[in-house]
Amino acid sequence: MEVLATGLPASPGAAVGQIVFTADEAVEKAGHGSTKNPVILVRAETTPEDIHGMEVAAGILTSRGGMTSHAAVVTRGMGKCCVAGAGDIEVNERAREMRVKGQLFKGGDWISLDGTTGRVIKGKLGTMAAKPDDPELMKLMSWAEPFRKLGVRANADIPRDAIQARAFGAEGIGLCRTEHMFFGEKKLPHMRAMILANTEKDRRAALKKLLPLQRADFVGVFRAMDGFPVTIRTLDPPLHEFLPRREDLMVEIAVLEATKPKSPKLKGLKTLLRRVEELHEFNPMLGHRGCRLGITYPEITEMQARAIFEAAVAVAKDGVKVFPEVMIPLTATLKEMANQAAIVNRVAKEVFEGKEKTVEYLVGTMIELPRAALVADEIAKEAQFFSFGTNDLTQTTFGFSRDDINKVLPTYLEEGILKQDPFAVLDQDGVGQLVKMATERGRKTRPGLKVGICGEHGGEPSSVEFCHRVGLNYVSCSPFRVLTARLAAAQAAATDKLKVEGGRTK
Amino acid sequence: MEVLATGLPASPGAAVGQIVFTADEAVEKAGHGSTKNPVILVRAETTPEDIHGMEVAAGILTSRGGMTSHAAVVTRGMGKCCVAGAGDIEVNERAREMRVKGQLFKGGDWISLDGTTGRVIKGKLGTMAAKPDDPELMKLMSWAEPFRKLGVRANADIPRDAIQARAFGAEGIGLCRTEHMFFGEKKLPHMRAMILANTEKDRRAALKKLLPLQRADFVGVFRAMDGFPVTIRTLDPPLHEFLPRREDLMVEIAVLEATKPKSPKLKGLKTLLRRVEELHEFNPMLGHRGCRLGITYPEITEMQARAIFEAAVAVAKDGVKVFPEVMIPLTATLKEMANQAAIVNRVAKEVFEGKEKTVEYLVGTMIELPRAALVADEIAKEAQFFSFGTNDLTQTTFGFSRDDINKVLPTYLEEGILKQDPFAVLDQDGVGQLVKMATERGRKTRPGLKVGICGEHGGEPSSVEFCHRVGLNYVSCSPFRVLTARLAAAQAAATDKLKVEGGRTK
Repeated sequence: MEVLATGLPASPGAAVGQIVFTADEAVEKAGHGSTKNPVILVRAETTPEDIHGMEVAAGILTSRGGMTSHAAVVTRGMGKCCVAGAGDIEVNERAREMRVKGQLFKGGDWISLDGTTGRVIKGKLGTMAAKPDDPELMKLMSWAEPFRKLGVRANADIPRDAIQARAFGAEGIGLCRTEHMFFGEKKLPHMRAMILANTEKDRRAALKKLLPLQRADFVGVFRAMDGFPVTIRTLDPPLHEFLPRREDLMVEIAVLEATKPKSPKLKGLKTLLRRVEELHEFNPMLGHRGCRLGITYPEITEMQARAIFEAAVAVAKDGVKVFPEVMIPLTATLKEMANQAAIVNRVAKEVFEGKEKTVEYLVGTMIELPRAALVADEIAKEAQFFSFGTNDLTQTTFGFSRDDINKVLPTYLEEGILKQDPFAVLDQDGVGQLVKMATERGRKTRPGLKVGICGEHGGEPSSVEFCHRVGLNYVSCSPFRVLTARLAAAQAAATDKLKVEGGRTK
Repeated sequence: MEVLATGLPASPGAAVGQIVFTADEAVEKAGHGSTKNPVILVRAETTPEDIHGMEVAAGILTSRGGMTSHAAVVTRGMGKCCVAGAGDIEVNERAREMRVKGQLFKGGDWISLDGTTGRVIKGKLGTMAAKPDDPELMKLMSWAEPFRKLGVRANADIPRDAIQARAFGAEGIGLCRTEHMFFGEKKLPHMRAMILANTEKDRRAALKKLLPLQRADFVGVFRAMDGFPVTIRTLDPPLHEFLPRREDLMVEIAVLEATKPKSPKLKGLKTLLRRVEELHEFNPMLGHRGCRLGITYPEITEMQARAIFEAAVAVAKDGVKVFPEVMIPLTATLKEMANQAAIVNRVAKEVFEGKEKTVEYLVGTMIELPRAALVADEIAKEAQFFSFGTNDLTQTTFGFSRDDINKVLPTYLEEGILKQDPFAVLDQDGVGQLVKMATERGRKTRPGLKVGICGEHGGEPSSVEFCHRVGLNYVSCSPFRVLTARLAAAQAAATDKLKVEGGRTK
């Protein structure tokens, strides 16, 4: 077994397949049904445009990006093996080759990935399927479960993932990311039309086309979660994520100008680049995203609220028990929360009146910025629940970009400056202070406030124990980590009980 | 007077001149001495490579970037008029033209800037010089000054600015940014060689060439500040800021490959691009910068400490009273602070022994990340002073990129979500909580800890009043804002006194 490189164990499991370098190639080579060939998609980094390739690949390997890079987050959601940020691997997507340790690999060469340790191995290793319904595992869970006090939900964006989450025992959806719904082949063109629109009128026309598609997604998720709450986050990522990359457009235009200056494509490309330039940001994670989108373009929040409530009413009429929780991302002030809650409540009223049917719902917020934690008592005046987005909260509290931490982390771990990756294991001394502070301050304003966590930490045992300790109501994590979270939550509660009984014996 | 557009009032004053679109053009057209022609440098955004053009221009106009963008910060330091982020202006640097309100402007056309209101005006307006030594102003200051308790320092990077700062009454330098010293024509090649080095040995060789240049800068600043403390920050910005832009390299290579595939330039460009790609970050503000540089490349901190102490010893031997305060940027943990303080202290000892002369000095840190404020009691075990970098602290607490806030701010101000730009006026409810918390926690560990602020807020009256109220020792701001800060600090103290006396009368 020749280990070529070690990257981040971004998503557990094993994968063996033939290398492909683009999403289209993955689709082409992977095939369907009985003719299915396993492929490993190798990219410098993945983007939303690679989704179709990621879906068919057996595993994903990237040379850049961290534990919460696009590749890592998406594959964990899919329950698919991923090794991310393997910096020793040099990927040349144009030449369709990768180099590592002086060896050259081309499309079609076999490699194996170990997503649990981050190892990239040369050649075709044997693998063995995991058994989630293993009887010994089931027995263990039956012993542990009665202790558990903390709720366990799953992060799931599409009906398929929601069904998977229920199978693992998730008691609801803690995070349904609506943006992932926009990347499908049918939806992306309308999303792009919405972004490229110059007027509110044109934007509304494009949103109108997205409405039924988004509503259909919600219907599916609500049905899968019959009887359990579903937390739906309004649009969060910066809009340029839905457009082609700026640097690719710049290169395409410059090459065309130098070689075919009369090409009819040039005008359209230049118009597109102009809009991409307008949307370009130096630090997109700290930019025009989250509730800032819904405030500058209220018609987006409006459309999303309408899709949520129309879907909820439709399934409720079929007898499904539905509890939507609309979650506003990236708030830092009470006024942002009030602005968005007003839109959601107005649309809910309109839909309920129009359809002559009412469903119970909540409007709350993610707490993912330090300022939100500091003024949580204020924000709780309008927010009916809190959910900690600990990925982003770690990012801003530490000033570490999730996608860039790889450049520093190896040295920091080696020198003992950090004991572990703060995106994998919650930093209880720093970020944890804010989680505790916000929970206390929020409940001071609104006693009994429901508080959860929906960052990746929700599936990590020591972080789950922390959430239990500070009195959160639930954790939410990828479907495939729900079992781990359930066990960790039961363990934390059992330890409490032992302590109390130990005290009593004395 | 035809107002073409309104941008951010990035640096006050007025400027009238002929448009130029590149730094080289600015140098060429501006001329020297009696043949000097006023030019306005118009750019989409400025980068460190534009410094030579900014130095000769009468004013700077950018279409992108915020109150703390490169253009804004550098021009405030220079005391030069700047309007930044005027989004209505479309700058086409390649075609050397700008469009605004359907009008086309070319190089050589006259425009006027009002840096106090952010207005961009068509044509050549008349201007009048300001008088900093106005007798009425002097009289006012003589009444106010006896009340003042808060110290006022200046942010100055080069000897010329330090001299200017003393003239305005600054009682020391609160922030000397060493990176600005590396952008000079002589230094940039060595800095680039250091960054492009593949081994520690090559890196040390390049640093050795920077050492005497950096030392000479410090000698000048120390002499200008004879008798006053000088806070010197170790290298802070991400290294890619010293290299050409990634997208420009990509375009240049692609065009060459399409038109002159045998060009001998290609190989070198590709090597450079590979390093730029390695350094590329998704969110540079949250990336490999600040003390993270000094920890991954300890030889950089070593060289800088050596330059500081060799300069300090040299001027002390000439009878100059020198008080260097070495400031470590972007710490989030005690261990980072301990790591860098150990290097600085070791080098100080080596220099003092070698030169047989000792000078007093401190090693402290910037508090510019929420986590640093939360664990300030820990960090104060190693840090001998704190200085709040409220620009970055605002950025991370709010999750607002300083360079991108323009896209959201107009709507936020209009809707009343924010009362003012938090980068111009300190957000006392959110960021202020962290400033207060860190000051209290730091002094709990180290009573009498010296605490200052060196963000742009240090020159804004309501923020200065806040600093007085929470018990900071000093504020530090651009030289041209020192008078304002002195007056605001005196006012805050006088108001205190009135309250006490008012209480007594009752």
